[in-house]
Amino acid sequence: MTATEALRVDGSRLWRRLDEMARLGATPAGGVHRLALSAEDRRARDLFGARAAELGLSVTVDRIGNMFARREGTDPALRLVLLGSHLDSQPTGGRFDGPLGVLAGLEVLETLREAGIETRAPLEVANWTNEEGTRFAPAMLGSGAFSGRFALADALASTDPSGVTVEAALDEIGYAGQTPVGGRSFRAALELHIEQGPTLEEAECEVGVVTGVQGAHWYDLTLRGEETHAGPTPMERRVDPVEALGASLVRMYEVLAAEFAPEGRLTHGVLEARPASRNTVPGEVRISVDIRHPDGERLESMAARLTSEVAEICEPRGIEAVWAHIWRSPPVRFDDGCVSAVAAAARVCGYSYREMVSGAGHDSVHVADIAPTAMIFVPCEDGVSHNESERITPEQAEAGANVLLHAALALANAR
Amino acid sequence: MTATEALRVDGSRLWRRLDEMARLGATPAGGVHRLALSAEDRRARDLFGARAAELGLSVTVDRIGNMFARREGTDPALRLVLLGSHLDSQPTGGRFDGPLGVLAGLEVLETLREAGIETRAPLEVANWTNEEGTRFAPAMLGSGAFSGRFALADALASTDPSGVTVEAALDEIGYAGQTPVGGRSFRAALELHIEQGPTLEEAECEVGVVTGVQGAHWYDLTLRGEETHAGPTPMERRVDPVEALGASLVRMYEVLAAEFAPEGRLTHGVLEARPASRNTVPGEVRISVDIRHPDGERLESMAARLTSEVAEICEPRGIEAVWAHIWRSPPVRFDDGCVSAVAAAARVCGYSYREMVSGAGHDSVHVADIAPTAMIFVPCEDGVSHNESERITPEQAEAGANVLLHAALALANAR
Repeated sequence: MTATEALRVDGSRLWRRLDEMARLGATPAGGVHRLALSAEDRRARDLFGARAAELGLSVTVDRIGNMFARREGTDPALRLVLLGSHLDSQPTGGRFDGPLGVLAGLEVLETLREAGIETRAPLEVANWTNEEGTRFAPAMLGSGAFSGRFALADALASTDPSGVTVEAALDEIGYAGQTPVGGRSFRAALELHIEQGPTLEEAECEVGVVTGVQGAHWYDLTLRGEETHAGPTPMERRVDPVEALGASLVRMYEVLAAEFAPEGRLTHGVLEARPASRNTVPGEVRISVDIRHPDGERLESMAARLTSEVAEICEPRGIEAVWAHIWRSPPVRFDDGCVSAVAAAARVCGYSYREMVSGAGHDSVHVADIAPTAMIFVPCEDGVSHNESERITPEQAEAGANVLLHAALALANAR
Repeated sequence: MTATEALRVDGSRLWRRLDEMARLGATPAGGVHRLALSAEDRRARDLFGARAAELGLSVTVDRIGNMFARREGTDPALRLVLLGSHLDSQPTGGRFDGPLGVLAGLEVLETLREAGIETRAPLEVANWTNEEGTRFAPAMLGSGAFSGRFALADALASTDPSGVTVEAALDEIGYAGQTPVGGRSFRAALELHIEQGPTLEEAECEVGVVTGVQGAHWYDLTLRGEETHAGPTPMERRVDPVEALGASLVRMYEVLAAEFAPEGRLTHGVLEARPASRNTVPGEVRISVDIRHPDGERLESMAARLTSEVAEICEPRGIEAVWAHIWRSPPVRFDDGCVSAVAAAARVCGYSYREMVSGAGHDSVHVADIAPTAMIFVPCEDGVSHNESERITPEQAEAGANVLLHAALALANAR
């Protein structure tokens, strides 16, 4: 083993940094409430900027608020290697979903600095704006604008539920940056993230070498019936969208289990009734539908099957079912060279690893449009994420950062 | 027929008054948005007060905002006869639910004044605060505080979804009155209202003589599962409260149809998921449950059956089902004398009528605790109510007001 191969990050320092970040927007249950471009997000951004400055990194902020902390390489002709993830959270989110990838990126740079190691290509650590998509839709807004998948003007005009635009929110927290969004080219991009699923833990595997991301579709499904008074209207005269919702939900889960198990996923995260009055049969109910599959054709087939099954439930009831397509993310296959570099890094460090497909979308989905990309996963307890009880161990965080370090070194120094 | 028996209200004047009131909070779809103690409700109250003043009536407002417009009788020893209903509306409500009873009350007094007819007992027209229960819970707040069913302090402390109390809202619109709430005694009380159901229309009957009100229970049902990420978590590892909700809804509607048809009613007006993020399996879902039955024992039995059926669905899924009892209104039987007076009035006017039980709760449910009470129903188109398309004809409004007039005369003049 060479001296460089023996290099390791400082796991306890990384853990302290994670803990420090988790205090910003901390919830009593041990999680984090740090919505994109909120006051909590501003404090997280300030902390990222302060830590980067301590490491002598130059920080730039682009017009959609993406932050980049740069360490120069020895060969000015080479394109950069990007490390990074996001600092925003779900409303009742965990402390590792996002920050692990950002702070491990800084830890890699700090480790190199302490060891006096320079790389041929420059390295940058990114903090992408609004990955979660909870406050502003769509998710992965900053990386999507950066990659050109979303028009910048549309991204800036996206509004939160109270009507505040991304542009106004950026101004409010002082992160409407000056540098252009995107238009840069990359040697490679790597993102370390917790798995957010149980595969690695169940396989007792330390590292996931992520070869791609499953595809996802987001819909709003509205069932329209007839608004009427709860008391006097006989049951048989009602056109009740809640009754139709119950039958539709049962059918959708049945079809998923019968035809698309085990890879297919179906999630309804949002439910609403209008006018939302206790003693009124709602005129309509709306649910969000998130479907995912690693295979693009199967994903399309899932969408078609669910649509036709819901129509079959609703038509005889006189209920109108309207599907609005909110967002679509086809399955992604990462770059073979980057995937190989991650696997090699896991071998150098002596960690058990396996190749896998990500169930969740990540900023890397967009980055993969413009850069050779791969991801590194570490297990999380019981596969639980998007939850205040999301948990990993210091050893798991350290393992992920070590793989990030060695994959980044290999990619930045490759001839 | 005596001259008094030949007396009729001015139907076109009543219709104009209804139209005038419907402009306050009018919605583009022809309905009304006039939540209790809102700016729109203030304008409706001001209009009520102005019309009463034109008729020479004295208006008092009590501490919960209930308004009373009084016409003296000839015998100061007699207790009063109360007519009235409410001027607040559902969020997307109709123009007749409430205002018909209030404005018909004023029309009765105006008709008597024009005809130079005095009554032995005094007459008052009431406008009760927050009948709908949409902005502040529970429904029928003002009449319930008046009857003593709710403690005044509790009623004043009830908050709307943004945390504003009834007390603050009354101050804000200038209707925190000075007179004590309740403590008065009545000869009789009558409420004219649209049926809000299809019975009268289907029976081609002009007037409903309401003998009582079905009982109702309100619950919040919370299903608790496990909040987790939408993408990576395999379906079979989820503890998904939305899946359990679908199965529970189907079972609840099945049990209702199989065991409690045709009288039993089941309505879910409010649905919510938490944390309400598209790409998170909700940790919990909450639905409102409104059940009604004219028979008190059957109502209790419905509550027990639904609870046990939902438990049977949820337990094997690892979902916790929690029922919070929000409100309970036992079935009400109105006063025989008042019911007879309403039927006699319908006969005097030559209208077809039938006795019936109200499906909806009304202020009269509370008033019946402290006064001999009955209600008068008129049909509404297709039985549709709590809906902007709620509709009645001028003739139907006039018929209801004529029955109110003659029932009030009989009760106020009885020896």
